[in-house]
Amino acid sequence: MIERMKFDSVYIKSWASVAGQKEAEGPLANMFDHMIYDEYFGKSSFEKAESEMCRICINTLLAKCGINTNDIDIALAGDLVNQCVATSYAAKHFKIPFLGLYGACSTAAESLLTAACIISSGNAENALCYASSHFCTAERQYRFPLEYGNQRTPTSQNTVTGCGAFLVSNAASDIKLTEAVVGVISDNGVTDQNNMGAAMATAAYDTIKRYAALHGSLNGIDMIATGDLGAEGHAICAELLKRGEIDFGGIFTDCGLMIYDIAKQDVHAGGSGCGCIATVAAAKLLPMLQNGEIKKLMLIGTGALLNTNSVLQGESIPSVAHAVVLEKV
Amino acid sequence: MIERMKFDSVYIKSWASVAGQKEAEGPLANMFDHMIYDEYFGKSSFEKAESEMCRICINTLLAKCGINTNDIDIALAGDLVNQCVATSYAAKHFKIPFLGLYGACSTAAESLLTAACIISSGNAENALCYASSHFCTAERQYRFPLEYGNQRTPTSQNTVTGCGAFLVSNAASDIKLTEAVVGVISDNGVTDQNNMGAAMATAAYDTIKRYAALHGSLNGIDMIATGDLGAEGHAICAELLKRGEIDFGGIFTDCGLMIYDIAKQDVHAGGSGCGCIATVAAAKLLPMLQNGEIKKLMLIGTGALLNTNSVLQGESIPSVAHAVVLEKV
Repeated sequence: MIERMKFDSVYIKSWASVAGQKEAEGPLANMFDHMIYDEYFGKSSFEKAESEMCRICINTLLAKCGINTNDIDIALAGDLVNQCVATSYAAKHFKIPFLGLYGACSTAAESLLTAACIISSGNAENALCYASSHFCTAERQYRFPLEYGNQRTPTSQNTVTGCGAFLVSNAASDIKLTEAVVGVISDNGVTDQNNMGAAMATAAYDTIKRYAALHGSLNGIDMIATGDLGAEGHAICAELLKRGEIDFGGIFTDCGLMIYDIAKQDVHAGGSGCGCIATVAAAKLLPMLQNGEIKKLMLIGTGALLNTNSVLQGESIPSVAHAVVLEKV
Repeated sequence: MIERMKFDSVYIKSWASVAGQKEAEGPLANMFDHMIYDEYFGKSSFEKAESEMCRICINTLLAKCGINTNDIDIALAGDLVNQCVATSYAAKHFKIPFLGLYGACSTAAESLLTAACIISSGNAENALCYASSHFCTAERQYRFPLEYGNQRTPTSQNTVTGCGAFLVSNAASDIKLTEAVVGVISDNGVTDQNNMGAAMATAAYDTIKRYAALHGSLNGIDMIATGDLGAEGHAICAELLKRGEIDFGGIFTDCGLMIYDIAKQDVHAGGSGCGCIATVAAAKLLPMLQNGEIKKLMLIGTGALLNTNSVLQGESIPSVAHAVVLEKV
């Protein structure tokens, strides 16, 4: 079993983010490239809206880094909609070889590390990675019709309406992708689909622990940002780190806690969804690396690998956490 | 845009297949490693059955190549069940870093080429790839309750109950994975979910055309096997190849046409599903390469990237086809 992947010449050259209304009302409002207040994004269904959001995000990325689709060798993407149609339908608009991924909310990190391997193998120079989620597609697919207006439990999280896109390249730039840890599936017995933070906390801990064991320390990392553990999962993972004697003093945070003002925005335990880590990374964390506020970031995509049937059939919720280590050059 | 990927030291070391009753009644019956006649595989639901089939297939592979899970650096897998729970729940049984993929029925080929990139990047020595489908999980998820016993159209295909697993390695063995072509999403306007062969035919053609254009020929390939175009899709793709003046005389076949006796087994246009190409490759094609019956195989996973909502919302069916080139050493 490999404990981590290593990369010599893989960089994050550019990034872009698109977010919805609730995200635009949160603390990161002025950091997104686009905010779109119509949850339909001008389309006739939520699913088409999510695809459109991806298309806009990719075009924004292309514009920001001044390259066109011919310069991109491969695209890697995924989302939460059944059969990942949000991201694959978006890919129809771009004639780029396309690999679909499914890692639930870990997909953004999975796409970055897979792209890094493809680039390191010499089979691509530029890879487009993106991941999305939409509150309305996720809510009606996983839970209840939106019109029903059901009450949510305190540990539930709010699926982020957002897409983040990244250009991964072998051409040197400010941010280098140096290492990755591919998650091992963890199942701690949680069966409550309204508490996915608790289900994913052990997966995140396992990934951090493997990395720390390999290096004997956190190896100079000055921020660990998980994707969407939320308040409940973050507290559990922090407790596990403490018991595991992994010194994370003050550097451990979660994108699901950053994207909303949890005290004010009625989002219960925080944000979730593939778009949570993708938008927070693109809007806040990569700029922090670029301007030197942090020097070495471990970005950990956390995914709960359930579906609606598996929950009804009494299965517990297996989870996975993939990490990429990004360094300011 | 890259036209193809190249690999120096990637091999398919071993493979295994598990199939269900209808497949066991077909022409490949004596080639599968296991045939299981209970569609529940001893479990309480079809979804759990599909996971169990994957678990059995992986254990069979491990036994065949005499290695244990500690020697495997990474697993890559996917299936058709919403959120790919068949393959990810199977992965719970093995403590191997896990990447989930979603390429619909192209997943087996996608897993092989992605594993090849990871191995070529130096970040793994042994990768486990597997893909599965189950008639009962697919039928009730995509179409109708099984009990309803609806009539099927002549162009419809029969989802294969089967799992194929592969050990991809940097250690030399009989079969070398030398090249791959990552598919570009193709949408030819087909909206009939009972004619996925027609939807996927253009994607398969595009992938073959790109490979042929690069080499100026089919470069010594002596068999092209698509995953699950079925009778309708195979005929359309053959016609496109003819019009495109790509000389495929007698070497172009389809796993969906091989797995059943179409004239006798009431499967309409043939087999389909992630498990179709995976089981046919593991049961028939890789042994053909190994014993020298063929020398250079292009295996093309073909995937229709629809979901049930996208069809109801009037969307056409985008498709993708990923190819791997396998050579007898």
